[in-house]
Amino acid sequence: MNPPPDWSAALVALLGPEKVSHASDAIAAHSGDKWSASHPPEMVVFAENTADVSATLAFASERGIPVTTRGAGVGYVGGCVPVRGGIALSVMRMNRILGIHPEDGVAVVQPGVITRDLQDAVRAVGWEYPPDPASLKECSLGGNIATNAGGPRCLKYGVTRSYVLGLEVVLADGRVLRTGGRLHKNKTGFDLIGIFTGSEGMLGVVTEATLRLIPKPACRSMLAAVFPEFPMAAAAVQAVLNAGHLPSALEITDTFTLDAARKRLGEGTFPPGKAHLIVEIDGRHAAVAAELEELHALLTRLGATFIERAPDEASCERIWQLRREFSYSLRDTGLHKLNEDIVVPRSKLVELVAFARALQEETGIPVACFGHAGDGNIHTNLMVGDYQDPEVRERADEALDRLFKWVLANQGAITGEHGVGLAKKRWLRDAIGGVSFDVHQAIKQALDSQGLLNPGKFL
Amino acid sequence: MNPPPDWSAALVALLGPEKVSHASDAIAAHSGDKWSASHPPEMVVFAENTADVSATLAFASERGIPVTTRGAGVGYVGGCVPVRGGIALSVMRMNRILGIHPEDGVAVVQPGVITRDLQDAVRAVGWEYPPDPASLKECSLGGNIATNAGGPRCLKYGVTRSYVLGLEVVLADGRVLRTGGRLHKNKTGFDLIGIFTGSEGMLGVVTEATLRLIPKPACRSMLAAVFPEFPMAAAAVQAVLNAGHLPSALEITDTFTLDAARKRLGEGTFPPGKAHLIVEIDGRHAAVAAELEELHALLTRLGATFIERAPDEASCERIWQLRREFSYSLRDTGLHKLNEDIVVPRSKLVELVAFARALQEETGIPVACFGHAGDGNIHTNLMVGDYQDPEVRERADEALDRLFKWVLANQGAITGEHGVGLAKKRWLRDAIGGVSFDVHQAIKQALDSQGLLNPGKFL
Repeated sequence: MNPPPDWSAALVALLGPEKVSHASDAIAAHSGDKWSASHPPEMVVFAENTADVSATLAFASERGIPVTTRGAGVGYVGGCVPVRGGIALSVMRMNRILGIHPEDGVAVVQPGVITRDLQDAVRAVGWEYPPDPASLKECSLGGNIATNAGGPRCLKYGVTRSYVLGLEVVLADGRVLRTGGRLHKNKTGFDLIGIFTGSEGMLGVVTEATLRLIPKPACRSMLAAVFPEFPMAAAAVQAVLNAGHLPSALEITDTFTLDAARKRLGEGTFPPGKAHLIVEIDGRHAAVAAELEELHALLTRLGATFIERAPDEASCERIWQLRREFSYSLRDTGLHKLNEDIVVPRSKLVELVAFARALQEETGIPVACFGHAGDGNIHTNLMVGDYQDPEVRERADEALDRLFKWVLANQGAITGEHGVGLAKKRWLRDAIGGVSFDVHQAIKQALDSQGLLNPGKFL
Repeated sequence: MNPPPDWSAALVALLGPEKVSHASDAIAAHSGDKWSASHPPEMVVFAENTADVSATLAFASERGIPVTTRGAGVGYVGGCVPVRGGIALSVMRMNRILGIHPEDGVAVVQPGVITRDLQDAVRAVGWEYPPDPASLKECSLGGNIATNAGGPRCLKYGVTRSYVLGLEVVLADGRVLRTGGRLHKNKTGFDLIGIFTGSEGMLGVVTEATLRLIPKPACRSMLAAVFPEFPMAAAAVQAVLNAGHLPSALEITDTFTLDAARKRLGEGTFPPGKAHLIVEIDGRHAAVAAELEELHALLTRLGATFIERAPDEASCERIWQLRREFSYSLRDTGLHKLNEDIVVPRSKLVELVAFARALQEETGIPVACFGHAGDGNIHTNLMVGDYQDPEVRERADEALDRLFKWVLANQGAITGEHGVGLAKKRWLRDAIGGVSFDVHQAIKQALDSQGLLNPGKFL
């Protein structure tokens, strides 16, 4: 245990001893996320309200202390690793749903609320909060806002940004900004909500959010189809959309992932075939039933060799559960999964998977692709040994470098959902270009001139 | 005709004589929009490509010349009035649809394309561009992006921001920024698209946009219901949403507007009743037919005294056409319409209309309310005499002041669709508060340090 910093007593005096910790377990628990990097903060602050956050930031900005804000800490890119030490500012005690108001079509929440908890509470009154990152049982809404989180249903319903109507944000110097509110349209000034949403803790600290709700779709249904070859499944993605369907999810899986799943779950889980496609639709009962028939006929015409029908909530959930097993199946290989949430123009799905196959052959690193085909957002998983082993890491990073260069050369994005954090910092400038990088720096300078908010990340 | 500025020859030499004008008709045509304010620019530039825009901005920033960018010039708030003179930069010659790509779910456009022209071209290939501002036959996509334009269908489909996936923007110093692209998700860095969308020409000039398309809904249908009293129609808005319907439009009209419409169109146009509600749904044929039955039964239960059914495209369009007549009906009164696009939390529709009635009684200024009830975005029209007459204007502005103060006291917004421009500049600071105003200034300073882009507006 390192000695506490010389400002620790002042911080304790400011906030009270129950909200500040230097204990080694607290330091360790606030050093990293699900990515490989880790660095201890000097102190941990457990904010309980906006005033605590404001006092902490004012304190830190007066003394030039770095502050790294932290939600549930389940990010994939090291975004909340306090690489410059200082204060790890946890908002997880701010975990109250302040109100659910169907009459205004909103929920008002604190940042530490777990995404699934909000969804459950909203559904209980017949409404819906659509964003559904895969980690929804453990991620926080504050983290979702920091990364502008996505998920399968974004194809139809849009990412987190589409659901943020109002924010309370504490600025770097401790001032409290309120922007937007219980308003489904608002053109008063610049889009400050957009500036903070997805800013990865580098521009301010969200302490309250007003989130848009939609009427809960009455039901959902799903088709899970197996195709002999991946390009046939990719063609089906286009055909479904071209036929005027807007599914709530369109998820594709490649043969490598399917084989791993068959190994874990039994050969019979998926009939033979090199690609798997989930088409989920939602809406009112009669509508969904009729559309499912149309889609079944369409997928059959397109060459699906097996189609499983999930006509109700429970059977849909069973298929999603199977799909969540994909990650575990990949882990069964004994390898470490580098989950890269790349995005390509939708027309390039086949090229992407072909490139992944070639990359696997040339580097010897298995590559598993599955994800949100409708969005072109395909999680491309490089399966490597111990990533902490310098030799493994060098080979892996070289393969990642090839992947990201290919993605950028094909008008793609290096991250669609997880953010840049530390994991993709190296490729950020190539991804956005020099002018955009300068604009990023100018905005960072405008809102955090000392560079104290989540320092050491992509700017 | 004023003499040309001393820099006019240099500008002509830079761009060529066919792209620069000092002719009095060009000056006059670029002095105002649909609001009352007007101010001549010193020169007009007709940019034909990104290089022209870049050269113009570099030229202007070297010399400290104000630049006010202009699309179709049909805004409602004086947003494109060159109040500081300088250059009026028209992008209306950049009016090409560069590509429609269903395989990527995007269209790529120049800023001068008329919104309706894009919609028609997209529908011709079976896809849809949902944003539908009322002025869509004459407004430009560049203007839509500058104001983050809305429209009736935003309730289901979201505002313009939800459809901008990529932008090319010329910065104040002439540098060209490209951000985003043919990607339906992208978490690479801050949300620069959001920063420029809705920035009313004050942060950069959009020269190209990549816009998201969705599969075209197969059909739409509508119910147009008359209710005895406005609160019953407002309650129906809540009931429709609470029953799990997400209409593509939910439009409400008050008794003042209805009476004016009856006067113009004939007493029989609308059966007796003090409120009118349009519920439009879209989707696949079977789905829409079934949902229309459910909604019909629901509206009947809620006390609608007359329900017109519009089961297909043509009959829907007829009702929309009738609704568009509302504006003309109001004009028939011989009065000038101050169209205020205010927004309130949806639960406050009844209070808003009650306030409007009281305002009318106390000021003697007729107030007509109709608009996007699902969004709480109610166009509140103050019907005044000649707004150029100082006495009329003083009374009107005092009434506006009371309206906006009530809106802000009720957690509303002073603009939901039109923007701030000159018309609402006076109320901007009260609307957003001091901290937000400072953040606006900091962002403006970061991107346009000389303050040359659309100067004299809300910052």
